[in-house]
Amino acid sequence: MASVEPRGEPQGLEQDWHQRIFVNRSLALGKIRCFGFDMDYTLAAYKSPAYEALAFELLLERLVCVGYPHEILRYTYDPTFPTRGLVFDVLYGNLLKVDTHGNVLLGAHGFTFLSEAEIWSFYPSKFIQRDNLQRFHILNTLFNLPETYLYACLVDFFSGCSRYTNCDTGYQHGNLFMSFRSLFQDVTDAMDNIHHSGCLKEKTLEDLEKYVEKDARIPILLGKMKEVGKVFLATNSSYNYTDAIMTYLFGVGEAEASARPWRSYFDLIVVDTHKPCFFAEGTVLRQVNTDSGKLRVGTYTGPHQHCAVYSGGSSDVVCELLGVRGKDILYIGDHIFGDILKSKKQQGWRTCLVVPELSREVDIWAQEKERMELLKRLDMHLADLYQHMDGSSRGLQVINSTKREIWRVTRELDLCYSTMGSLFRCGFRQTLFSSQLTRYADLYTATCLNFLHFPLSSLFLAAPELMPHESVVEQERANLDCASHLLSYSRKLIKRSHY
Amino acid sequence: MASVEPRGEPQGLEQDWHQRIFVNRSLALGKIRCFGFDMDYTLAAYKSPAYEALAFELLLERLVCVGYPHEILRYTYDPTFPTRGLVFDVLYGNLLKVDTHGNVLLGAHGFTFLSEAEIWSFYPSKFIQRDNLQRFHILNTLFNLPETYLYACLVDFFSGCSRYTNCDTGYQHGNLFMSFRSLFQDVTDAMDNIHHSGCLKEKTLEDLEKYVEKDARIPILLGKMKEVGKVFLATNSSYNYTDAIMTYLFGVGEAEASARPWRSYFDLIVVDTHKPCFFAEGTVLRQVNTDSGKLRVGTYTGPHQHCAVYSGGSSDVVCELLGVRGKDILYIGDHIFGDILKSKKQQGWRTCLVVPELSREVDIWAQEKERMELLKRLDMHLADLYQHMDGSSRGLQVINSTKREIWRVTRELDLCYSTMGSLFRCGFRQTLFSSQLTRYADLYTATCLNFLHFPLSSLFLAAPELMPHESVVEQERANLDCASHLLSYSRKLIKRSHY
Amino acid sequence: MASVEPRGEPQGLEQDWHQRIFVNRSLALGKIRCFGFDMDYTLAAYKSPAYEALAFELLLERLVCVGYPHEILRYTYDPTFPTRGLVFDVLYGNLLKVDTHGNVLLGAHGFTFLSEAEIWSFYPSKFIQRDNLQRFHILNTLFNLPETYLYACLVDFFSGCSRYTNCDTGYQHGNLFMSFRSLFQDVTDAMDNIHHSGCLKEKTLEDLEKYVEKDARIPILLGKMKEVGKVFLATNSSYNYTDAIMTYLFGVGEAEASARPWRSYFDLIVVDTHKPCFFAEGTVLRQVNTDSGKLRVGTYTGPHQHCAVYSGGSSDVVCELLGVRGKDILYIGDHIFGDILKSKKQQGWRTCLVVPELSREVDIWAQEKERMELLKRLDMHLADLYQHMDGSSRGLQVINSTKREIWRVTRELDLCYSTMGSLFRCGFRQTLFSSQLTRYADLYTATCLNFLHFPLSSLFLAAPELMPHESVVEQERANLDCASHLLSYSRKLIKRSHY
Amino acid sequence: MASVEPRGEPQGLEQDWHQRIFVNRSLALGKIRCFGFDMDYTLAAYKSPAYEALAFELLLERLVCVGYPHEILRYTYDPTFPTRGLVFDVLYGNLLKVDTHGNVLLGAHGFTFLSEAEIWSFYPSKFIQRDNLQRFHILNTLFNLPETYLYACLVDFFSGCSRYTNCDTGYQHGNLFMSFRSLFQDVTDAMDNIHHSGCLKEKTLEDLEKYVEKDARIPILLGKMKEVGKVFLATNSSYNYTDAIMTYLFGVGEAEASARPWRSYFDLIVVDTHKPCFFAEGTVLRQVNTDSGKLRVGTYTGPHQHCAVYSGGSSDVVCELLGVRGKDILYIGDHIFGDILKSKKQQGWRTCLVVPELSREVDIWAQEKERMELLKRLDMHLADLYQHMDGSSRGLQVINSTKREIWRVTRELDLCYSTMGSLFRCGFRQTLFSSQLTRYADLYTATCLNFLHFPLSSLFLAAPELMPHESVVEQERANLDCASHLLSYSRKLIKRSHY
Repeated sequence: MASVEPRGEPQGLEQDWHQRIFVNRSLALGKIRCFGFDMDYTLAAYKSPAYEALAFELLLERLVCVGYPHEILRYTYDPTFPTRGLVFDVLYGNLLKVDTHGNVLLGAHGFTFLSEAEIWSFYPSKFIQRDNLQRFHILNTLFNLPETYLYACLVDFFSGCSRYTNCDTGYQHGNLFMSFRSLFQDVTDAMDNIHHSGCLKEKTLEDLEKYVEKDARIPILLGKMKEVGKVFLATNSSYNYTDAIMTYLFGVGEAEASARPWRSYFDLIVVDTHKPCFFAEGTVLRQVNTDSGKLRVGTYTGPHQHCAVYSGGSSDVVCELLGVRGKDILYIGDHIFGDILKSKKQQGWRTCLVVPELSREVDIWAQEKERMELLKRLDMHLADLYQHMDGSSRGLQVINSTKREIWRVTRELDLCYSTMGSLFRCGFRQTLFSSQLTRYADLYTATCLNFLHFPLSSLFLAAPELMPHESVVEQERANLDCASHLLSYSRKLIKRSHY
Repeated sequence: MASVEPRGEPQGLEQDWHQRIFVNRSLALGKIRCFGFDMDYTLAAYKSPAYEALAFELLLERLVCVGYPHEILRYTYDPTFPTRGLVFDVLYGNLLKVDTHGNVLLGAHGFTFLSEAEIWSFYPSKFIQRDNLQRFHILNTLFNLPETYLYACLVDFFSGCSRYTNCDTGYQHGNLFMSFRSLFQDVTDAMDNIHHSGCLKEKTLEDLEKYVEKDARIPILLGKMKEVGKVFLATNSSYNYTDAIMTYLFGVGEAEASARPWRSYFDLIVVDTHKPCFFAEGTVLRQVNTDSGKLRVGTYTGPHQHCAVYSGGSSDVVCELLGVRGKDILYIGDHIFGDILKSKKQQGWRTCLVVPELSREVDIWAQEKERMELLKRLDMHLADLYQHMDGSSRGLQVINSTKREIWRVTRELDLCYSTMGSLFRCGFRQTLFSSQLTRYADLYTATCLNFLHFPLSSLFLAAPELMPHESVVEQERANLDCASHLLSYSRKLIKRSHY
Repeated sequence: MASVEPRGEPQGLEQDWHQRIFVNRSLALGKIRCFGFDMDYTLAAYKSPAYEALAFELLLERLVCVGYPHEILRYTYDPTFPTRGLVFDVLYGNLLKVDTHGNVLLGAHGFTFLSEAEIWSFYPSKFIQRDNLQRFHILNTLFNLPETYLYACLVDFFSGCSRYTNCDTGYQHGNLFMSFRSLFQDVTDAMDNIHHSGCLKEKTLEDLEKYVEKDARIPILLGKMKEVGKVFLATNSSYNYTDAIMTYLFGVGEAEASARPWRSYFDLIVVDTHKPCFFAEGTVLRQVNTDSGKLRVGTYTGPHQHCAVYSGGSSDVVCELLGVRGKDILYIGDHIFGDILKSKKQQGWRTCLVVPELSREVDIWAQEKERMELLKRLDMHLADLYQHMDGSSRGLQVINSTKREIWRVTRELDLCYSTMGSLFRCGFRQTLFSSQLTRYADLYTATCLNFLHFPLSSLFLAAPELMPHESVVEQERANLDCASHLLSYSRKLIKRSHY
Repeated sequence: MASVEPRGEPQGLEQDWHQRIFVNRSLALGKIRCFGFDMDYTLAAYKSPAYEALAFELLLERLVCVGYPHEILRYTYDPTFPTRGLVFDVLYGNLLKVDTHGNVLLGAHGFTFLSEAEIWSFYPSKFIQRDNLQRFHILNTLFNLPETYLYACLVDFFSGCSRYTNCDTGYQHGNLFMSFRSLFQDVTDAMDNIHHSGCLKEKTLEDLEKYVEKDARIPILLGKMKEVGKVFLATNSSYNYTDAIMTYLFGVGEAEASARPWRSYFDLIVVDTHKPCFFAEGTVLRQVNTDSGKLRVGTYTGPHQHCAVYSGGSSDVVCELLGVRGKDILYIGDHIFGDILKSKKQQGWRTCLVVPELSREVDIWAQEKERMELLKRLDMHLADLYQHMDGSSRGLQVINSTKREIWRVTRELDLCYSTMGSLFRCGFRQTLFSSQLTRYADLYTATCLNFLHFPLSSLFLAAPELMPHESVVEQERANLDCASHLLSYSRKLIKRSHY
């Protein structure tokens, strides 16, 4: 992990972090024989916050429709609140930010932050067993953003509404008890409803300009990739929606209506993929009749037909149809679990995660350099205090005030990103999302279009990962070297200056 | 991860890496209220290779006893061959070194290394689904070392023996087919036998001087810890064996026979813990009658009695009896899965992994600095070659020869450690063991005695983990800073030299 | 089991088997404090075959809609073909009739019966492991009847269609392979579609007279029951559908529009029950707003409100709300698995299975008495042949011709019921359905209205179940008794006649 | 089920129920091509109660050895107490007799019977969810008899011992709480210990005359079977124990020491079978070196060698080695679950259960005819009372006194068998054991030697199983027939008498 030197830097461009592709594990593009893409949020970048706001509104409408009070309609989506990767605790109704081991970094109940004491009392040792999926629901995808905000809104509403009595695990209203668990169930059902009833898709298609980024460079990128290897699309969306979105993305204007059809950019198109199941046993592969949008009856068994569209199948079938093996494939997607973790862990594919938030995150990181330095100094200071702690009350006082200062600076830093802080960290500590990204994505970048800035023969080189004991050796050596280097350099200068 | 600055450095001693405690995640000893220890390989360091050789001999004897040919008795344990953390593939009989995702780094069949081509043909994409526990058996503990070597010996023997015909998944001998799976089963049964029949323990107790390190500093360490907090022992061994080993370790000589009994160093002693189950649902807690060594009937329910010995129980029960919470506990053990991963993941304990190999590993790492540098340069060179690859056969030739050179240097480097290479890495790539250590152990060190070199108020401070995009920003800034710093420094020197 | 004497015989009516309630385990109605009903096929008897024909047509339309050839539309539902309780083998596309242990009694591929030899070759030992639910799909409910016939039709169609090549596990058509598994999946999806899209319900509601039996005795039955105990409805249907059906069933004519509303006949109405899950962990209980048909937000927690309608919940919740225990409840339903097996096995409820086919089955059984006698004699004859088998070819010939005769008579008997034979048996052997009915249903009857023929204090008494060794003793005694009885009777007659 | 006419009656012998083979499902011996035997309690009948008393003593010794008070040694095995097939409730420490659905028929706490009220309070609705295997432990085998009695003794001891306080779920003794669950665990461990340490086997082998029935007819039976088909042995015991027992059973005296060795009676001998796993995936098949008793390394793959001994394997392997199919095999064993249920359900084998208790049970059944008749009349009477119940207090009084009378007679009947009653029933109600026997065993008999009384070409014919509605038809017809038959007979007699 550690420091990284992407060798394939943007060609002839001024250095721009937004255009970078970051490297967790070295990858030689030249060895990739096949590029795979997810569609939603990967090729089709939904415009933020317009798209989230749309989903949020539909969710509210649905909830009202199943019996929630009309008053919740007064909430509007606030993009500055939610951070991706939060966990919703369906027992106590809290939104939590956790690290990879389940240590709680930050917690909120509605829009109110939990105090340190509250966190300790809700979560003994500030720790959750995050594999308790019955209780802790991870909100990992960009589609989860409106849902995340909705949990905060609903908890805010019911906690503040005088008709409801606050209880530990929910609200009482006359004879009705609304547990956080049932609230969670209602929101989940509403999410399923807006996705499966088609209403979200319908609204999106009605105003594509408003909701989907159109970028003329998409066909260029895919064209380039197709020159050097095979290209496939694997999306959980249906054919009809996929066709509508892709036609829009690849349609370069009325004049060029006779342009190359979007399907011609792919060697293989698979819709209804049921990821993550797609990376395991998968489902039956069917051919799609692209005229009617309907499935052909029976499973396709013949040789691969160029541009053909299939429904279902599995990653194994994709490899077979395209004649490639796991390591030959670079799969580019936005879903850390469904796209990246599963393709890596179960199939050994090479992976690139698209993280739209990255542009903003890296800018803030660069701007807030000083606050981070301050945090570092405060940490060092705390270390010194601990090491020389004499048990005196004066000593404890200093320690406590230092800790409060660290907390204060950490919150300041968080708020530069959003109410719930950065996607990647909370002060010095990394989030679960961040750890998963590091473990499972070989590369990550703000948009797949960034591949245009690199020749398709680039080697993305990760700096050697050093373990703590290795770094120690390295560093102590380096200090010596640097000292002697500086010394000799100075001597040269001095020497030179004598003449 | 990344670079690390252990603030609590050995006091007044010359800098010695062997005495260091390395830090994956910051930990303030001052906040620890309870120290837990495993016994085997943690407090009781078995002498290597004497102990492994003993187990190896008992295994061979057992196998002959269940029908294996006498000829296998000619093998003797070779400590320079095995590395901990290998995977045995029970389908093809290969020993594999893999990284955290299941990518194969190195493979051996008996004592013969698998070629690149063989690896690709056995393991498509050089990849294994390592959660297929029916097929891939991870050899994670120090107790597994003799077993690891034994797999190599048996495969070597049968592959070379003219009475047996080599098949893909085993050997044919007349009407009998010996699959690698059955060979694995036999070795596993033999392991169970030597551990559960008591023969290994018996032999160990017969010559403790030969098999167990005795270090007078153990009572000192535990005494020190008991002054500042609580101390417990949690071992999977039985009470009788535990008592014999601990009596030996704490007996400081005949003269001092009247010395403090070992049990007085602990607030709580739990034997038969059945880790890792201990960290989940656990078993019934019983009190041990320390006179007879037998269990009391029924479960202990009263308040905690000092020095009492219990059998079974669970980590929850330990917390309750000692009145501590997960984050208050630092658990020091040698088993990456049973001690460290489970206590961290299921209970949120703070963890320290004892890695006896570490002393040797860090020495070699320091010595082989140049080979690592060479590898780094070769990697950079390969990156350049890829990036400017023109598809010419000349270009491919250079790439291939560079790759061969990298492979050669990697093997040279490996062999400095042992035949199967370093515990932590294979060239630039980290092993599964290494990743797990990084994820689950907060601290790691060669021996638990290293805690004597630090005040028990130390803060072990991990350097902030930077993600690739963060490092990039950091580094480019640093380059600028360094350049300007050097510039101003030079100017000063020049200035000064003018006078 | 064995012979049964239902003590509560229809009052003052001529003996009519159709009005009987049959008894597997004795049950005192007088001890029942609570009557539970399923709706579909229990209170709401769908008219056969009109309703099945409707579902069959909708299924065909759906299949054509997802790409099946239009030619399948030429099939029309044939009520004389399917029998409930068949198993569809998704590997080979056969419909099987099996006994409780998985022995195959009868098999058909499309409309063609499998020969004895074919059965042995498809199913070694004529046996299926019926807990292999991935392969064997049980068609247990009345809703499955159209599906059952559809499998036969589709296999018939594709097997006979010249465009398709017959393979072991499906059909090849150009590049497409249609496995029986995918055909099964398509039909299952189509079933889900017609049930969940609402089209079946819509069509049903459009012409209730055509599809649902209206019987003025339903309100009378429920009224009677409510006088002596509590009454609840637990249906998997939604509130709106339930309300429409029940309003129709209880509406006794326009004139009496002001009649008692259907909800007043129940102490508790639960819709969306998700049986069989309802009998285990269940789902969240919500109140239904009977004005809007929508769910109230939150879970109902107060005391029971008469006539209130709830959605979800579990059998435990029903007991709690009504203040009754498992054994107090008689649950009357038509679904052997979802209603009867689960309520009995998991909750210990008393159970009555409604089996509409029973009227016809019992009539045929009575008519075909002689064929059964013939079968019995043939069996006895075969036994004699076996016992005195001398291994001669003549002997074998006679055995084989006797077997053929048994087979012929069995088929004749089957065809009196329907193409696939009786719901309960195949010759002397009982079906899986029959065994499950015997094990799990305390009572069974053709319609729940038969309870009107018995006072609600009746004791339904099962004859003592005798085990074979008990019967043997019994019988040999009985023979003796009978002989002596007859003897003494004769003597009396003779005596008397002497005068 | 129902009435049964075993056609193959003992040849030329006086009718003796002890020598009968009873029939649940018809079976033609002439079609059986292969006979399989379990050893323990099937071929090797352990002498009762000597063998159970031995096991009981060893269990007590073991418990004292792990810390139980010496006072428990005063208990001696009482064969008149336990009945096979009871369930031990590890939560409340009760022994329960249950029917197939989990309805509680009888309960005892120690040696005290639970009253009706206690049963209702421990087990709501008198019902247990018997698939809760964590709580309910079924004591199905003859090996479980001493364990069953031991539970009663231990509960009796601790309940009566003044040092222990009785709690709901166990006993408190100072700081120690002994739950029934831990008591159960201790007994289970002790059972494992006496079986696996070899002490029970050792004692048995030391005095074979005392513990094992030797019957000269065993070689005769196997010899006869081998003439008409194949014969195999499949035992969970080890080779050495099997060899010792079988040598004893087949050794017909010193004079004939040169007699035919026992292995020659079998086509295949499989030891260490790990039933029930043997009937599913099984284990690796190894050849046993009959000279050393040790396993050959590797798996046997060649053609079948006559008399060879194997270890492990699976039922599939047996079929393959012997060239037979499931339905060709009649497997004779004593373990309802491990031998019979599993071979029937998973492999479709024909099955015969050996039930040593049967001789005594059938005798008592025959003797107690009148008590059963009385019970029947009381039941009828109760039915009448229920049916004409008018709600008067007088009516209720009569009902209750009738119920008490039924209970009294049922207990009287029970006690004719043993303290816990019959293996098969409790009054009119059948036990779980009885239902399982009926479902899974095609035949059952008191000893496998009973096959000597039948030619191996016999057809065992089950009476047709009639469902209640079928019986009703049958019976009403029969009544008519009988009446008319009697009428015509009488007429004849009268006619004749006229002359």
